[in-house]
Amino acid sequence: MRAARLHEYTDDMNDALTVEEVERPEIEASDQIVVEVEGAGWCQTDNHIIEGMWESYADQDLPMTLGHENAGTVVEVGEEVTTVDVGDAVLCHPLRTCGKCRSCRLGNDMYCENAAFSGLDTDGGFAEYLLTSERAAIKLDTVDPVDIAPHADAGITAYHATKKAVDVLVPGEYCVLFGIGGLGHIGLQAVEAMSAAQTIAVDVKDDALALADRLGADYTVNSADEDVTDAIVGITDGAGAREVLDFVGADVTTDLAPEIVSPGGDHHIIGYGGHIHRPAQDLVDGEFDYRGNLVGTYTELQELVALVEQGEIHLTTSEYGLDEINEVAERLEHNEIEGRAVIRL
Amino acid sequence: MRAARLHEYTDDMNDALTVEEVERPEIEASDQIVVEVEGAGWCQTDNHIIEGMWESYADQDLPMTLGHENAGTVVEVGEEVTTVDVGDAVLCHPLRTCGKCRSCRLGNDMYCENAAFSGLDTDGGFAEYLLTSERAAIKLDTVDPVDIAPHADAGITAYHATKKAVDVLVPGEYCVLFGIGGLGHIGLQAVEAMSAAQTIAVDVKDDALALADRLGADYTVNSADEDVTDAIVGITDGAGAREVLDFVGADVTTDLAPEIVSPGGDHHIIGYGGHIHRPAQDLVDGEFDYRGNLVGTYTELQELVALVEQGEIHLTTSEYGLDEINEVAERLEHNEIEGRAVIRL
Amino acid sequence: MRAARLHEYTDDMNDALTVEEVERPEIEASDQIVVEVEGAGWCQTDNHIIEGMWESYADQDLPMTLGHENAGTVVEVGEEVTTVDVGDAVLCHPLRTCGKCRSCRLGNDMYCENAAFSGLDTDGGFAEYLLTSERAAIKLDTVDPVDIAPHADAGITAYHATKKAVDVLVPGEYCVLFGIGGLGHIGLQAVEAMSAAQTIAVDVKDDALALADRLGADYTVNSADEDVTDAIVGITDGAGAREVLDFVGADVTTDLAPEIVSPGGDHHIIGYGGHIHRPAQDLVDGEFDYRGNLVGTYTELQELVALVEQGEIHLTTSEYGLDEINEVAERLEHNEIEGRAVIRL
Amino acid sequence: MRAARLHEYTDDMNDALTVEEVERPEIEASDQIVVEVEGAGWCQTDNHIIEGMWESYADQDLPMTLGHENAGTVVEVGEEVTTVDVGDAVLCHPLRTCGKCRSCRLGNDMYCENAAFSGLDTDGGFAEYLLTSERAAIKLDTVDPVDIAPHADAGITAYHATKKAVDVLVPGEYCVLFGIGGLGHIGLQAVEAMSAAQTIAVDVKDDALALADRLGADYTVNSADEDVTDAIVGITDGAGAREVLDFVGADVTTDLAPEIVSPGGDHHIIGYGGHIHRPAQDLVDGEFDYRGNLVGTYTELQELVALVEQGEIHLTTSEYGLDEINEVAERLEHNEIEGRAVIRL
Repeated sequence: MRAARLHEYTDDMNDALTVEEVERPEIEASDQIVVEVEGAGWCQTDNHIIEGMWESYADQDLPMTLGHENAGTVVEVGEEVTTVDVGDAVLCHPLRTCGKCRSCRLGNDMYCENAAFSGLDTDGGFAEYLLTSERAAIKLDTVDPVDIAPHADAGITAYHATKKAVDVLVPGEYCVLFGIGGLGHIGLQAVEAMSAAQTIAVDVKDDALALADRLGADYTVNSADEDVTDAIVGITDGAGAREVLDFVGADVTTDLAPEIVSPGGDHHIIGYGGHIHRPAQDLVDGEFDYRGNLVGTYTELQELVALVEQGEIHLTTSEYGLDEINEVAERLEHNEIEGRAVIRL
Repeated sequence: MRAARLHEYTDDMNDALTVEEVERPEIEASDQIVVEVEGAGWCQTDNHIIEGMWESYADQDLPMTLGHENAGTVVEVGEEVTTVDVGDAVLCHPLRTCGKCRSCRLGNDMYCENAAFSGLDTDGGFAEYLLTSERAAIKLDTVDPVDIAPHADAGITAYHATKKAVDVLVPGEYCVLFGIGGLGHIGLQAVEAMSAAQTIAVDVKDDALALADRLGADYTVNSADEDVTDAIVGITDGAGAREVLDFVGADVTTDLAPEIVSPGGDHHIIGYGGHIHRPAQDLVDGEFDYRGNLVGTYTELQELVALVEQGEIHLTTSEYGLDEINEVAERLEHNEIEGRAVIRL
Repeated sequence: MRAARLHEYTDDMNDALTVEEVERPEIEASDQIVVEVEGAGWCQTDNHIIEGMWESYADQDLPMTLGHENAGTVVEVGEEVTTVDVGDAVLCHPLRTCGKCRSCRLGNDMYCENAAFSGLDTDGGFAEYLLTSERAAIKLDTVDPVDIAPHADAGITAYHATKKAVDVLVPGEYCVLFGIGGLGHIGLQAVEAMSAAQTIAVDVKDDALALADRLGADYTVNSADEDVTDAIVGITDGAGAREVLDFVGADVTTDLAPEIVSPGGDHHIIGYGGHIHRPAQDLVDGEFDYRGNLVGTYTELQELVALVEQGEIHLTTSEYGLDEINEVAERLEHNEIEGRAVIRL
Repeated sequence: MRAARLHEYTDDMNDALTVEEVERPEIEASDQIVVEVEGAGWCQTDNHIIEGMWESYADQDLPMTLGHENAGTVVEVGEEVTTVDVGDAVLCHPLRTCGKCRSCRLGNDMYCENAAFSGLDTDGGFAEYLLTSERAAIKLDTVDPVDIAPHADAGITAYHATKKAVDVLVPGEYCVLFGIGGLGHIGLQAVEAMSAAQTIAVDVKDDALALADRLGADYTVNSADEDVTDAIVGITDGAGAREVLDFVGADVTTDLAPEIVSPGGDHHIIGYGGHIHRPAQDLVDGEFDYRGNLVGTYTELQELVALVEQGEIHLTTSEYGLDEINEVAERLEHNEIEGRAVIRL
């Protein structure tokens, strides 16, 4: 089968992945399944993997097929699989979990001690076929696999962080969202659907802010034109935002927390690439938290699919062929993709 | 009356405060009270105030009487005071709050929009008399004011952070405590009293670790002798600690979070002085939080007093006279005080 | 001034209250205020008070002016009042709290040890003037007092219970609402605004269900025509509802919990009049809770006002004069009021 | 193999179960295991099953081997079992769960849609061998299976409810425990280990109260001698108890909630047999909850085993042979068993 594979880490996105012929994967355990991939989302994390940023965090054995946002049709099932059948359309959570360790038993799929992560430490879905397990698959009733694929990571990651924010937000409070791109435009819709807080969308691109506006943002701030702190202090009448969802994770965004997060509030780190550089005293004086966020659980992906099926969240996507995959990498590197790119297979 | 006052910021602790005669404070509102101070705890924050570290965070009008850990006897009450009487022994929460703003109405005394903080932005208790309000006073039934004074800040701050940690710790999990000094030795006892988690006390001093051991720590680690990460990874069998209570807040302690906090866990910043310098990706990969902690609420101080009255928390203190106050400052600067220093008035 | 007062308990709503001349109330403490009442909502609890149902729960000294949903203009303020001024339009939380007891310090206004409850144990707002305190008053920016008055109890009670439900509801789950009257139609809008759960409105009146439908209910069930358990089991595909908001509180509604609440879910008791009669084994087998709900806090009323000002919650009201007050009592007794009745003063 | 089986529902405990020869169970799926039972606890629920009280709640196909508190040694494992080996000592959670349904994925083992419950709807452990799955087994390091067997239900049920109570209890508050028998004496130790709240143990037997006293109860009340409400009101100085753990679940205990639970508190239903018969208005006026409790999760059983291995919880047990099983049933019916009875196999 054809697959887009990473042979060595590079900063040159034009020459990142090689599309080549590899063996179709085979089922090796009773709960595994093979999915014929129809759509696979491209993620900022794919760029980061290519650059080698995950080398010290994950076991990566190159060459490796990337792609962790996969959806398609089940074409083969292990002998004890009961929850999906051949022919079912499915969205695939990126993790294949063991289901037995304490983290799995608590529902914390991301912390599974025996997990494989498609496209991060095992072959992913920029390929005709993907090996995964029934524990990763969510059956789709009405939604097209290509349309929903990016939710497997962009969606679930945005939803996971949003849910923490929404759990504490009450009417009259504010939620700031940094970066209205692939993740941010989903997170914004989730905040709108699940809370009555006021939303403030911040981005450097007017297009992104126009999208935010269409999706229901109460306020938009162009950080290329305005001082973000002043804008937020003004909008919130000095109170600051209870929750900040930082889909950018650059030095310049994490740095704002002491000024814009209200006491007892949270600055959620979702995007990454930059650093946190702040005095401990800032966190004491303002009693705010920097909170890490790592993808999301299987049941959160179920909840997100419910939101999509209810029509509460719409993805903005653009489609590409497998042969255009390095062009996608390059364009995302230059922040030239609106919404989310999907590789159609 | 006599009071120990700060006239200008300095790094010279031997010449930090001036003991001098000032006017006794007068009641100006119907809910205010005057307390004859019997004991006032000395805090690391007093050193930080003297050094000017709070100048940019608080409105400080020098000269100012320091002292935010105060206890004594009520000698005068405003005309609508109902909860304490002249003659009552009281412990004083450091904040005089308005009781009317939304934060006060939610019980978040620390975020009061109209608060005065004794010894930080208004005159404190290193003096014969302290002006405060009935909203700050907790009546003492059986405990001596001098013995309990440090709980007004060291105690409540340790308890406040501990309570967040205890809320998530379950049996079989680990809690690391960095720094078994004034705050840390209270926090350790609070974790022991309120949870069944295993505690790991870390300090550079064997004396502090011996104290930790007597107070019930399950494990002790001398960070001058051992690699802390290795020790914690070993004790926890690779799992890491769900909660870290960092009473030090130095670069070297905040830096350990990615290695020692288990996924989904928290690194609580309580001590300060250092910085957080970590890639955002660390917080994503390990999904941990850096959580700020600012003193604690009035009702938390009530809970702490209940713990003390039940005999669950014992303070290790050493007493000094008002004239020895700069000696205390100097000794704390060199980490030469065991437990907590109290100025007896 | 004119006031509608209860002289003795009765089941005859046509002769329930007497409109008569009484003294205008006077300020007696530094935080009190006098409000010229413009609108006062009539509540099912007023019928219950008239029938004597609260005699054993509250200290009632007859004759007493009823009316606990009050809004109007401040006409006099105590000497230490700082948060409202003469001339301000205000909505009045029904409780005058002390602000000093532990419950008040925790933000639990309803549990204040020293509270007075307008129209329940002290004179209320079916009168030209109401004595209350600044702690009860919420300043209104844009909303008319008459339009918002019922939120002081109907609204805050519905919101308080809804908030508990919304805290656990996730997308894909169901919330049942029994009784789409004064409280229920507010609760429904609050669930819609603050969650993405599916709502199932149940009532005996087609008018009420038509209102529910207009306000966004996903499903409606007429319990006079359909078997409610069958309907809910059908809609939820056998899963049941995670949360039930019971604005009726009759035997027939509390009795349904074991059949319709999903495991781990809640049946919130908001309306009352009936009993719970179930085997303890039901609660064990289904692990559900019967949860009591008592009005709501001052800060919850602030949040509700924010929702109203954002246009997320609309009250359906009908206005009456003070002289028509017994007619209102009689009509509510026969379930003939749509939405909420307000006495305009 | 020999097994104690129920052939028909009866109220005659002397003739409840028949000890007879049956086939040894065989492994039928890749995750199943066979355990040679060493100890199996007898539970009040066994009496209730014999009386037919679970007939309408569970699918019971008689004859059936009872016994849901099982521990022993693994003697056979399915082909994909990875977490236990032949020869391992194990404690068995009573449920064999699917691991795939949403409830399992959330960690709510008790709500598994495809579960089998040993001794309730499938053959249990009053037998030489028990068929279960690796998902039910917890490996024991240092504890003897006979000594720990009752924790599989008595322990986990007490722990599960206690954990909910401890989550809200703070120092200075009170926890009432009704019934210091099999479950209650575990619950008491768990409250003591995991919180600093004051405990009030209530029982009709002085022996049980003496046990409570030895296990650390702060107060004991003999409900045969004293008015329980008066006693609790006195001890708590009128405040009532924030949490009540009702291990009895009789009419007479559930009836006390309105008088003894403080506002916002909980009455946890753990024991059963009686009813709740209270006006809805009681729950409104006191804003308390009746909370159902159903066994506990697998991870909670892990936490309980940690507590046992740390020496924080000690079981009081008495041992019997399989032939004495009806005598155990009869003695428990007359409340003549101290602590917990275990059948040694």
